[in-house]
Amino acid sequence: MNNERLTAFEDAILAIIMTILVLDLSKPDPVSWAGLWALHASFFAYALSFFWIGLMWVSHHNSWQAVRQINMGTVLLTLVLLFFASLFPYTTSLVADNFNNATAQALYGLIIIAISLLNVVLSLNLGRLNPKAKFGLLYRTPTSVVMLDLGIKFVGLALAVTVYPQAMIYSIFIASLTLGLSLAKN
Amino acid sequence: MNNERLTAFEDAILAIIMTILVLDLSKPDPVSWAGLWALHASFFAYALSFFWIGLMWVSHHNSWQAVRQINMGTVLLTLVLLFFASLFPYTTSLVADNFNNATAQALYGLIIIAISLLNVVLSLNLGRLNPKAKFGLLYRTPTSVVMLDLGIKFVGLALAVTVYPQAMIYSIFIASLTLGLSLAKN
Amino acid sequence: MNNERLTAFEDAILAIIMTILVLDLSKPDPVSWAGLWALHASFFAYALSFFWIGLMWVSHHNSWQAVRQINMGTVLLTLVLLFFASLFPYTTSLVADNFNNATAQALYGLIIIAISLLNVVLSLNLGRLNPKAKFGLLYRTPTSVVMLDLGIKFVGLALAVTVYPQAMIYSIFIASLTLGLSLAKN
Amino acid sequence: MNNERLTAFEDAILAIIMTILVLDLSKPDPVSWAGLWALHASFFAYALSFFWIGLMWVSHHNSWQAVRQINMGTVLLTLVLLFFASLFPYTTSLVADNFNNATAQALYGLIIIAISLLNVVLSLNLGRLNPKAKFGLLYRTPTSVVMLDLGIKFVGLALAVTVYPQAMIYSIFIASLTLGLSLAKN
Repeated sequence: MNNERLTAFEDAILAIIMTILVLDLSKPDPVSWAGLWALHASFFAYALSFFWIGLMWVSHHNSWQAVRQINMGTVLLTLVLLFFASLFPYTTSLVADNFNNATAQALYGLIIIAISLLNVVLSLNLGRLNPKAKFGLLYRTPTSVVMLDLGIKFVGLALAVTVYPQAMIYSIFIASLTLGLSLAKN
Repeated sequence: MNNERLTAFEDAILAIIMTILVLDLSKPDPVSWAGLWALHASFFAYALSFFWIGLMWVSHHNSWQAVRQINMGTVLLTLVLLFFASLFPYTTSLVADNFNNATAQALYGLIIIAISLLNVVLSLNLGRLNPKAKFGLLYRTPTSVVMLDLGIKFVGLALAVTVYPQAMIYSIFIASLTLGLSLAKN
Repeated sequence: MNNERLTAFEDAILAIIMTILVLDLSKPDPVSWAGLWALHASFFAYALSFFWIGLMWVSHHNSWQAVRQINMGTVLLTLVLLFFASLFPYTTSLVADNFNNATAQALYGLIIIAISLLNVVLSLNLGRLNPKAKFGLLYRTPTSVVMLDLGIKFVGLALAVTVYPQAMIYSIFIASLTLGLSLAKN
Repeated sequence: MNNERLTAFEDAILAIIMTILVLDLSKPDPVSWAGLWALHASFFAYALSFFWIGLMWVSHHNSWQAVRQINMGTVLLTLVLLFFASLFPYTTSLVADNFNNATAQALYGLIIIAISLLNVVLSLNLGRLNPKAKFGLLYRTPTSVVMLDLGIKFVGLALAVTVYPQAMIYSIFIASLTLGLSLAKN
């Protein structure tokens, strides 16, 4: 297995996920500006999912340029990461249609947290195999930013399952802005 | 991030969008020539969406051959452009099933206008990074043609939200012919 | 636009079409061998569509290896060919659910005939641009085989709209075997 | 037809299959942890299908690096293999919604057995064309492991159609672990 093939396969799967998200987006009823406005939570969930995967893709490829060596562990970790990512259309649709439901919000968040943790494991795997790349917890993102990102999501999850379901998706939005800004600076 | 990877990812997403458009195309009822004819507005919207994205793809790749340098701005602008493009199956299906509805028509047109404006911003970004490519408002399309294209669509939008909803999709059809002819000449 | 990019884009769209065909395949009711057998016409239509596009893909790439030069006409013809191909999931589902309906059968056949004729135009275009490739009506397929293939389909169409709807899909099956055998010999 | 093109096409189709599996995954009703738990058989079928194709992809590419020569037989066998693989979203959805149904389980298993046998034929074809690759029944997997894998599935099939429908999917799970462990060791 070479690096090129693996990243091309990952790109294909991420591109398909991002594009089929729309198939589950609810249609306005009636078809009017008021009908569309009633779906604003759905559009927010849709946009967040699209850009979350999109930014993960950007971050991966920025980082993988420094990768020379991969092993079977890299391949299997990537497969598990893609499995959780493949659930995005499902959890996005669930949270879009049940925005105030704690289970829907928690499931949406748990998938994203699972992917985030897999990215950490993947980064450690690649860092070991490619010492010159100087990878940390999440490629070249400063450890403090990674911790902040994970911390915000776990706080969101705790709030979501106790007092305020929507805390989950808002915390992911805030955490993504943090990561995105750090990415833009690098 | 290199140029190759970005255009391959964009190609994949555009190809998927063009191909899943069909999933929302209404089936004739009854299955007869009369039943098919009753769907002619749907088929028109479907064909227009397919070729609009197809011609954008042709135009992009014709132009990107002159691109040597991209930056993080190029990547993020492309991601936003793809986000709006990913809504095509949604707005196409909405306009196909509600051809005389001003909201459906305006939403369809606004997404296309947003993509057109993002193409202008992207072209300016690439033109700055690649002075040898001699890019204008829309790659090498003459400024007058770009202005005409945008003008026709804005007139269509104004008519659609006031007196004649279908003006939107017809204006996009006319504007695309203008751009397409200019593309064929280059 | 270069050759590589165009064929990669075409490959992506054909791969997606072949794979989403399944989304419209009817589920058996009840779930039993009798229930599955009741869908045998659907499975036949599904398999025929899958292999028809699959063999077109094989034939294209066998032939395009000899192509060095393409022009804007090649690109636009390919786009139109892909447009008709993108309707496959629609017409396959229509014919699968209405196997004895003349309109469904004729529409299914007309899309395939349109693609066949576009392949002829494309082959003539590529033959002119690449004289060394020695392309005929359909790449290197003997003219008599191309004529036979088209003839069988037109006879099928004539029978379908007059006395026997299913003649369309059976004629496509027979014509594909003819072409496939000729392909296997080359 | 060259090797690169064929594997890229195969990759695209496998990536699409893995990603559209989710479109047929049932939504919980009510949206609660109990509602999700009620779908655990669906999630199991979904995960098994995803990883089964994923591991086939890993195994293919590990092995195809040793392939220098392919012929028309390789291409046609791959097309037939992809046809059966394209039915995965259909059979997965069927087995997920009818977990105790012998027909659904047997159909799910028969498609997987067909793909497994096609992989054997493909491996023999490639082994003949590329003697240096030293391919056996399933690339470089020891013959005993291949026999064990097939044996477990046939036992599962026999149990499924007689006394215990779910034996099919569990036997595939066990057989996949066997193959996966052997793959990890190589």
